[in-house]
Amino acid sequence: MAFTPGFTGSVLDRVEAERLDPAIVPRLVAEGDALYLAMPDYEPATDDASLAWTALDAAIPADELVLLGRIDGRPRFTRLPGDIQPARRTPAVMALIDSLPPSDAATYGVARSLLDWHARHRFCAFCGNPSTPMRAGWARHCPACGTEHYPRTDPVVIMLAEYRRGDIAQVLVGRQPIFPPGRFSALAGFLEVGEAIEGAVARELFEEAGVRAGRIRYVASQPWPFPSQLMIACIAEVDDPTITLDTNELEDAKWVTRADVLAALAGEDGAPFLAPPSYAIAHTLLRAWAEGA
Amino acid sequence: MAFTPGFTGSVLDRVEAERLDPAIVPRLVAEGDALYLAMPDYEPATDDASLAWTALDAAIPADELVLLGRIDGRPRFTRLPGDIQPARRTPAVMALIDSLPPSDAATYGVARSLLDWHARHRFCAFCGNPSTPMRAGWARHCPACGTEHYPRTDPVVIMLAEYRRGDIAQVLVGRQPIFPPGRFSALAGFLEVGEAIEGAVARELFEEAGVRAGRIRYVASQPWPFPSQLMIACIAEVDDPTITLDTNELEDAKWVTRADVLAALAGEDGAPFLAPPSYAIAHTLLRAWAEGA
Repeated sequence: MAFTPGFTGSVLDRVEAERLDPAIVPRLVAEGDALYLAMPDYEPATDDASLAWTALDAAIPADELVLLGRIDGRPRFTRLPGDIQPARRTPAVMALIDSLPPSDAATYGVARSLLDWHARHRFCAFCGNPSTPMRAGWARHCPACGTEHYPRTDPVVIMLAEYRRGDIAQVLVGRQPIFPPGRFSALAGFLEVGEAIEGAVARELFEEAGVRAGRIRYVASQPWPFPSQLMIACIAEVDDPTITLDTNELEDAKWVTRADVLAALAGEDGAPFLAPPSYAIAHTLLRAWAEGA
Repeated sequence: MAFTPGFTGSVLDRVEAERLDPAIVPRLVAEGDALYLAMPDYEPATDDASLAWTALDAAIPADELVLLGRIDGRPRFTRLPGDIQPARRTPAVMALIDSLPPSDAATYGVARSLLDWHARHRFCAFCGNPSTPMRAGWARHCPACGTEHYPRTDPVVIMLAEYRRGDIAQVLVGRQPIFPPGRFSALAGFLEVGEAIEGAVARELFEEAGVRAGRIRYVASQPWPFPSQLMIACIAEVDDPTITLDTNELEDAKWVTRADVLAALAGEDGAPFLAPPSYAIAHTLLRAWAEGA
């Protein structure tokens, strides 16, 4: 099975070890070949539907430069404005993501999640004083109490329940009221403190659809930059297909066959549901299942 | 393959939907059969090496009660003292965890991670003002700016590189300077913003040991309550076993065979290394690999 989940496959080298050098930003700027991605209000500069990297503008204060990493050996920066606000998910950005090459979408995802984390964490959660960026934008430091803060990534489990009877296999898809008309997708929810992936999958399936998970198998993962989740996709076998819907979460849920899923993924006119977009891991998960995962 | 990672298998029902009721704590207290786990300075009360649940002490202020969930239908609380400090990892607690029944260790892990998160997040990271607990201890709210904050779980990837030549399979184990003498374990590192599990596994293996990952397979996961990680265990196939050690992270690394791993897990005198403790997922991962994962 060959598939590439959305927001993966970036050619970015994160230079994690280099970032430990407190003088890395001026050192890389001095190298002279650094490139820059403008992202005013989180909208990346593009050129022919690819990210538009330009020469680093010397007017940008060094303490506002965020080092994304290196591509083709050249340092890549973006900017953390002092007055940055949390990101909003705009239709323009979602359309852009759909058109970017996968590696560019992945690189943009890193930049977006990182800037948005700064925007939401300008104060020290331990003591309440203002914190300041450090490590080329990959951490914050509180001068008042000394606490260091690191970017946050929230694990989310997303899953298909699978019911087999004889030769017929079906998976469970559900729909939230905010979805576009006709759209159904895999069920999902945030992993909680103290949970394993498998425990969270079983809990969410029971809460949202009233089905009891048996054996659970991992399929794939991807980052999701709205604002910064780790999506963990699984399939859970169930013995009883009776659905008890949590109507606070879902307005509908139904069992669909392999043929249904393939028709939805192909965007066929008569398909029994509208599939999630290709950059969402629900799409990858449905495809993987349809192809035998 | 049957194995239960550490800190999993709790019989706790998290009552996630019930928690949305703003009056849930007084309502459950009024039911009269609630039980309480004392955890002074994060050390759980025990009785014959099990968690010691006692009747709820009416003297505890309602706004300091944290609802862990239900066990056997009865509500279970612990206490969030107003002056709580971040947890320290003490030898006494680590020894206790090793002796608790697995379900009790898992329940304690939930309680410990939750209290510790409150201790480290008493101020709003968005505006710097003090925040207050809400949702029976499962969130915080900032009265000044209205932001809601949820407990944080940091994904960590932990992995064995696997090298096969003919019939001989070997995996890579490494040792950090802080390990007890003789201890080797799987390599591990925090997943970064914008990464998938597979990308983080490949990055960490290359950074720490200089080996290039090929196909990566997921094995198991567990929560790790020091303070609150999600451990994601994988095996990564490699074609070239040449090790280039990052001596900032590891003081040694070596390839070991199935027989070596089995001897280490059995605690044999002549074993080539000391295995990680059974509640660590590195132990589960080594056992799973030795048994064919």
